Amino acid sequence: MAKPFLLGVLGGMGPLATLDFQRRLLDATPAQSDQQQIPSVVWNVPQIVDRQKALAGTGPSPLPQLLYGIEKLNQAGASHIAIPCNTAHHWYDALSEASEAPILHIVDATLDALSLSAPKPRRVGVIATKGTLEAGWYQNRLAQQDIEVVVPTEEELTQWFVPGCYAVKRGALKEGGEWLSLQANALFARGAQKLVLACTEVPVAFEAVNAPFRHLTFDPAQALAERCSQLWQIKR
Amino acid sequence: MAKPFLLGVLGGMGPLATLDFQRRLLDATPAQSDQQQIPSVVWNVPQIVDRQKALAGTGPSPLPQLLYGIEKLNQAGASHIAIPCNTAHHWYDALSEASEAPILHIVDATLDALSLSAPKPRRVGVIATKGTLEAGWYQNRLAQQDIEVVVPTEEELTQWFVPGCYAVKRGALKEGGEWLSLQANALFARGAQKLVLACTEVPVAFEAVNAPFRHLTFDPAQALAERCSQLWQIKR
Repeated sequence: MAKPFLLGVLGGMGPLATLDFQRRLLDATPAQSDQQQIPSVVWNVPQIVDRQKALAGTGPSPLPQLLYGIEKLNQAGASHIAIPCNTAHHWYDALSEASEAPILHIVDATLDALSLSAPKPRRVGVIATKGTLEAGWYQNRLAQQDIEVVVPTEEELTQWFVPGCYAVKRGALKEGGEWLSLQANALFARGAQKLVLACTEVPVAFEAVNAPFRHLTFDPAQALAERCSQLWQIKR
Repeated sequence: MAKPFLLGVLGGMGPLATLDFQRRLLDATPAQSDQQQIPSVVWNVPQIVDRQKALAGTGPSPLPQLLYGIEKLNQAGASHIAIPCNTAHHWYDALSEASEAPILHIVDATLDALSLSAPKPRRVGVIATKGTLEAGWYQNRLAQQDIEVVVPTEEELTQWFVPGCYAVKRGALKEGGEWLSLQANALFARGAQKLVLACTEVPVAFEAVNAPFRHLTFDPAQALAERCSQLWQIKR
């Protein structure tokens, strides 16, 4: 017998982005009653070591804590798992191997959605952590679709992206939005027609400052939420 | 060894109110980093039979489903459990008995907070489901504090409260806010100086319509979130 649908969300990275993702799940699901909404179990435990530091080699690996969350979500009966954090997908293979429930990949969801968008952009900017950028997931998959990629320079990451990201994490959304807008504008200046906001803190910050270029952005958290919701709508 | 702090949230009643509660948890916790935020595991499964109908005797009991959620939260390692739904507290005793983790009571949290507020109101209105009102939790505890209580009439519940509540549940927040404002104004007209919004859909709706009397309202979900956050701040 197939397991009843239950979305496991491995959250906490950060706790606010986890809420934002849950809101997107609800908004993506047409529902006339509570009962039609997507059932989920959410592991929102932010006491997890810093992923950016781990990837920079200056901190311990979060993998044991990520595996623990995946174990708990499987025990709770999750039929599918989503991780609304781009950087955490660094450990995707190890987590997938340990998980009975399939883990949806945030990059797959994003690129599938982007490949359906019209008109197809020729040049796309990617705002992401250094770890995500170095992994090259978005760049490789965009290149496969014959889309040119523009990414932040090392200097821009240090000056704008990192302070913006940590501002959001401490709840200073507007301050974060201002730093991150500088980053966005630099990518537009280098010819990006659209931006992939490949770090779940970024869209939250742009919404807080009502950034004028939001219609030109592509949000992996949104793409992942829509994919989860579609799965639920098929199964319900 | 004491279990590490992990808040279990028995949600899904409804899914939007569960998000609202999680947001309050974050807002109530002073945190400079993700790691200082309250760790939680959230059971947000809205496929649970209608509590209002169950209490009216026109539908099955939600108790088996509530017990299942409590079991899952305990298995996930919850050290404390909160239920951000007033009506579900009807089954509080049975759930408490089945739960290894203590379940915080929403009415205790609210009345403790109200007893500390100044100036103390002489007359308080309670907006709640028929089930919550018939249980008399708020009325009895308010009377113990020598506070007079004003509650909706049966007719007001049918005309305003019920349609307002179900509008929120289907995502029509402004429509819900308009219905529920009629209910609130009726209680103010009967002399209420403050209102206890004892149904987790109500504050969401009043925020959506920017209700002018929001500073006169008392929100059990907020009181419960603050109590959870205080516990976490002591333990962390």
